[in-house]
Amino acid sequence: MTDLTLVIGNKNLSSWSLRPWILMKQMGIPFTEVKIRLDHPSTREEIAKHSPSGLVPVLKVGSETVWDSLAIAETLADFYPDKPFWPSEEMAKARARCLSAEMHSGFAQLRGTWPMDIVNEAKKVSVAPGVQKDLKRIHQLWSEARRDYGGDGPFLFGEFSVADAMYAPVVSRLRTFGPVDLFEDMTGYLETMWELPAMKEWREGAAEEAAAGWYKF
Amino acid sequence: MTDLTLVIGNKNLSSWSLRPWILMKQMGIPFTEVKIRLDHPSTREEIAKHSPSGLVPVLKVGSETVWDSLAIAETLADFYPDKPFWPSEEMAKARARCLSAEMHSGFAQLRGTWPMDIVNEAKKVSVAPGVQKDLKRIHQLWSEARRDYGGDGPFLFGEFSVADAMYAPVVSRLRTFGPVDLFEDMTGYLETMWELPAMKEWREGAAEEAAAGWYKF
Repeated sequence: MTDLTLVIGNKNLSSWSLRPWILMKQMGIPFTEVKIRLDHPSTREEIAKHSPSGLVPVLKVGSETVWDSLAIAETLADFYPDKPFWPSEEMAKARARCLSAEMHSGFAQLRGTWPMDIVNEAKKVSVAPGVQKDLKRIHQLWSEARRDYGGDGPFLFGEFSVADAMYAPVVSRLRTFGPVDLFEDMTGYLETMWELPAMKEWREGAAEEAAAGWYKF
Repeated sequence: MTDLTLVIGNKNLSSWSLRPWILMKQMGIPFTEVKIRLDHPSTREEIAKHSPSGLVPVLKVGSETVWDSLAIAETLADFYPDKPFWPSEEMAKARARCLSAEMHSGFAQLRGTWPMDIVNEAKKVSVAPGVQKDLKRIHQLWSEARRDYGGDGPFLFGEFSVADAMYAPVVSRLRTFGPVDLFEDMTGYLETMWELPAMKEWREGAAEEAAAGWYKF
């Protein structure tokens, strides 16, 4: 396998970067991390060094650049066919792809109103109607996945899969903007995700950014 | 293989339905088509019969429902590993996934301002700045795909792939709202897509809807 480099944005803010990062960590895939500070005078120049599209995250594989979180997940699943990126049962896999795709293109209200901001816990905000609608749908998707395919495992489809990686930033939002009553029956899942070694490592990175003054104005 | 049913919306309007439909036709996968008339008093009830999420398109596979166009594409590619859903070369496949994913989550201005409306050709509208930005990006994605991976074939990655299916509604928009000068060097590709037997069959379906008075108010 060619060397892999994952170019990400701020750990505190870049929800799209968290997805492939936590996925690669959980799957035990070695990679070089390059972190670019977003919303900084150097951002554009730094990104241009790595990402022709000007977007992060990107996965660099030799001379190619894979620039979308879902494309990164599917591409890595191809590279490592023996690793459990997706549930092994084919209809569970189809469902996990539906959840991942719906996160990929949807939930704009939630994403816009509650941007990921890991270091600021207990924001205790009210839940606006658009956010409520998105959260209801996510709760339904999670509940049905666990009911139909969760078995005895702690994750959406039993074992950790791409679907959990795709919703990892939602777990963070529920933690730092919540708690949200609707998700009371998901406390176990939320705790499992929040305390994953990879998630803790990411959160420490976010805390370091804050300590270095990245979020002071 | 279990019987497959693809539930779609109006052929004239439902750009998301066109994507899996043309993909299945091009790949030669037999399926039962169920078309639901959108924006009609019966719509909600009809959709509820087939799609628990209330969304179309959905692919019904036994008791499971796959409800997102990209998830449908990846799931079918798994079901039929010998069919050329994606380019065979692994980095071409990664790129095709990036293009497909970017279409899946992006180009909101283009989609909102130029909704697919196949039967009304030669609309000759002005190109608003947000639309222009989306079209520029699409032109860049298409050009680079063809330059890097197109070879002698007429499609984005030489042979027809999921990427072409994902952009089929854009081909229609460029046709019916255009022509757009920027895409002059893509005339061959646009014509190839527009004249595909499957695309013609879809367009005939759209024309039948119009003839049946679906778009008269």
